[in-house]
Amino acid sequence: MIKIVFLGTTSGVPTKKRNLPAIFMMYKDERMLFDCGEGTQRQLMEKNLKFMKIDRIFISHWHADHFAGLLGLVQTMSLENRSEPLCIYGPTRSKEFVEQLLNIGYFERGFEVKVTELDEGDVVDCGEYEIIPFRVEHRIPALGFVFNEKEKLSANMKKAAKFGLATSPLIGDLKEGKTIKHKGKIITPKDILETHKGIKIAYTGDTKYTENIVKFAKNADVLISDSTFSSDFEERAGDFKHSTSDQAAQIAKKAGVKKLVLTHISRRYQEKNNSEKKLLDDAKKVFKNTILAKDFLEMTVK
Amino acid sequence: MIKIVFLGTTSGVPTKKRNLPAIFMMYKDERMLFDCGEGTQRQLMEKNLKFMKIDRIFISHWHADHFAGLLGLVQTMSLENRSEPLCIYGPTRSKEFVEQLLNIGYFERGFEVKVTELDEGDVVDCGEYEIIPFRVEHRIPALGFVFNEKEKLSANMKKAAKFGLATSPLIGDLKEGKTIKHKGKIITPKDILETHKGIKIAYTGDTKYTENIVKFAKNADVLISDSTFSSDFEERAGDFKHSTSDQAAQIAKKAGVKKLVLTHISRRYQEKNNSEKKLLDDAKKVFKNTILAKDFLEMTVK
Repeated sequence: MIKIVFLGTTSGVPTKKRNLPAIFMMYKDERMLFDCGEGTQRQLMEKNLKFMKIDRIFISHWHADHFAGLLGLVQTMSLENRSEPLCIYGPTRSKEFVEQLLNIGYFERGFEVKVTELDEGDVVDCGEYEIIPFRVEHRIPALGFVFNEKEKLSANMKKAAKFGLATSPLIGDLKEGKTIKHKGKIITPKDILETHKGIKIAYTGDTKYTENIVKFAKNADVLISDSTFSSDFEERAGDFKHSTSDQAAQIAKKAGVKKLVLTHISRRYQEKNNSEKKLLDDAKKVFKNTILAKDFLEMTVK
Repeated sequence: MIKIVFLGTTSGVPTKKRNLPAIFMMYKDERMLFDCGEGTQRQLMEKNLKFMKIDRIFISHWHADHFAGLLGLVQTMSLENRSEPLCIYGPTRSKEFVEQLLNIGYFERGFEVKVTELDEGDVVDCGEYEIIPFRVEHRIPALGFVFNEKEKLSANMKKAAKFGLATSPLIGDLKEGKTIKHKGKIITPKDILETHKGIKIAYTGDTKYTENIVKFAKNADVLISDSTFSSDFEERAGDFKHSTSDQAAQIAKKAGVKKLVLTHISRRYQEKNNSEKKLLDDAKKVFKNTILAKDFLEMTVK
């Protein structure tokens, strides 16, 4: 199970209702952030999300609306006596920018910040899951990320029973890939074990429409997409290399995802004048299972 | 008249109720900030404070809780097409730190940011008022600031009548320092004009108890003081070079100010367990006209 909490859902400029971009995810006891706009630490506090236990932060690109909250979050972690290292991942130049950001003013940090620069083709192996960066098309080097729970092995108990294995600890050996001998029979893992697809979440960061998202979001449980504009601003979206909500929906459809969440919403779209609804409706016409993210929207994916 | 709005009243770590330090002041049509902690732009929006019209930002010292909001505010000003220059003032190394902060990532700014490094003895002349920096004692170079409305000249109309001057435009000449001749009499400015003390607001930034605040806050209408701790944490306050609320009150009393506002309140003090009340009561025992700042507290001083 993975829990997703949207902490900031605006685009470049915050509004009274939408803070700057950040998405919190929790898988088992591991907490991570995707982007960390200004004010993220306080959004985490508002939802009691144990920000001290965040160990990984993925920055999609180095525009300030996606990273300006890092400085305050890291400082607060230090004031709260964190000692565990914090891992920050992002596109090219991330090492330089993190170093620059965390060394402004007079700030003694009590823990290590490890920065890893990623590009398409890399995989961040986190044990039971992996984070896969992929290239998107924005005005500057930018990445999307796939959270990919690894395939899980489980015994088909009917098949196991045929070999008299029922609850035998030998199933553990099979899961480790071993071939075993039981009651005179040789049993291989594939005789009994089945693989189950893990949870897959794709996040685009900021990007214009690109087929590369279709490729990386293929069959995802959830696609979280840039949706800065509604369809009538397609030209503007192209100029600024952002997506419209219906472009996000086209990608969701092509990629065959289960659910689409629109985020990075320009401040021009508001609840009060129904423009937010239009943005959502544009997408729903193309891909029905679409929702519009709001700050503090919480989802669980199983 | 000056309007003061407290945008952030916590110390180093924000809470659900208190954002990071920032104070907005408006004098006539001029808007300024004293410190600019993370999230300041959104606090300004919450109160509809026309952040685009802020022309001066005074940073008391370069700890991130006092400056991390600069990056987002400047970026938003740029995205909103600001063209007027923005003046940032602060202690030594301010130029280096502002340049470092505003050049992280990929950010094209559409307006000029002018940085002025200040020290005690300097005066920022803003026409009808001046900002006077003074040294305080913190762990790093740190300043307090005095907002000082200049003395205003007005005619004593009784005295003017004796010279037959009533509503004469010659009073304007007197205000310009000229000696005039009227109905055969020579009249000097001091025959008719009286000076009135302007509004004076003193803000300490972060500091331990120091007599220098007494000197600079002398007879202020309002003293806004570091009050990180209550009296039972005096030793800790000393170690971290912050003030207790009763130390702030002692300074208010010695300086003969009219009103004391306590801010920069450690997160350990909360409404729910009455500890905030204790912090305030400590101060009130020494200086009665004391209030505790809260986020969005608004004051006008005439």
